[in-house]
Amino acid sequence: MADDVLFEFLHMEMVSHIYKDQASRGEMDKDRATCVSTLEGMGFRVGQGLIERFTKDSPSFKDDLDVMKFICKDFWINVFRKQIDNLRTNHQGTYVLQDNKFALLTQFSSGKQYLEEAPKYLAYSCGLVRGALSNLGMDCVVTAEISLMASCKFQVVIQKI
Amino acid sequence: MADDVLFEFLHMEMVSHIYKDQASRGEMDKDRATCVSTLEGMGFRVGQGLIERFTKDSPSFKDDLDVMKFICKDFWINVFRKQIDNLRTNHQGTYVLQDNKFALLTQFSSGKQYLEEAPKYLAYSCGLVRGALSNLGMDCVVTAEISLMASCKFQVVIQKI
Repeated sequence: MADDVLFEFLHMEMVSHIYKDQASRGEMDKDRATCVSTLEGMGFRVGQGLIERFTKDSPSFKDDLDVMKFICKDFWINVFRKQIDNLRTNHQGTYVLQDNKFALLTQFSSGKQYLEEAPKYLAYSCGLVRGALSNLGMDCVVTAEISLMASCKFQVVIQKI
Repeated sequence: MADDVLFEFLHMEMVSHIYKDQASRGEMDKDRATCVSTLEGMGFRVGQGLIERFTKDSPSFKDDLDVMKFICKDFWINVFRKQIDNLRTNHQGTYVLQDNKFALLTQFSSGKQYLEEAPKYLAYSCGLVRGALSNLGMDCVVTAEISLMASCKFQVVIQKI
């Protein structure tokens, strides 16, 4: 338990610091995009580091779907304490990972009140996933959306070159 | 293992972000002090949150020494995976906590090369300790010093009113 909390609290502080910091510079409009991208970038580098550790003893992956299954199970359990509840794909490079009780959102009350605030608490995690996939050779765009609090969908779109 | 890494990596990213951010504003001299105090403040708030969780089921403490023992053992194990190696006190409100292999410094090589850089990786942890103690009713000043890499001394001075 201690560990979850340690990570969750530090994550909260980091989000709050980055938003406060931007606000103090008085650039209100540019704010949101910059903050999201700062957090996403931090997540990206951490994701790269994590996946190296997590896959140290793993056999190599058959295909993209195999990688995504690893992310949904092993990666998610290691980082967020549970596995993804539902993985869907169109078999053309788009994957939707649904987590019905996303660790970093469980602190919020479940009304609609905080839905607007929630995206800033997802940017870091989108980065984590993008960084992990990037180190496994998959160049992706990762976004997230929330319809009901604590339930969250991550969309991964593989970028074909 | 995953958890340590998750926290350590996020901590590294946060330190690096805060320092880069200050540098980009071109205030070179004010830098160091501001960054240290930003990190210390983040640690402080996280420490306050953590200690609430950790002491939920603990009996109340007899005296200051009893609190310090809790910090050295339970708190340190929960946060840094090991307990403090040595606790000393002058019985007048000053405590020295020595950790011979401090978790957030193990990534550094052990030469003298990085000694100068190390303090910025201790500010957050000083804040953690100060926050925890503050929530237990002890108003303290917490500083840290390194003589040999990965070995670290935290000095806690209780502020008498």
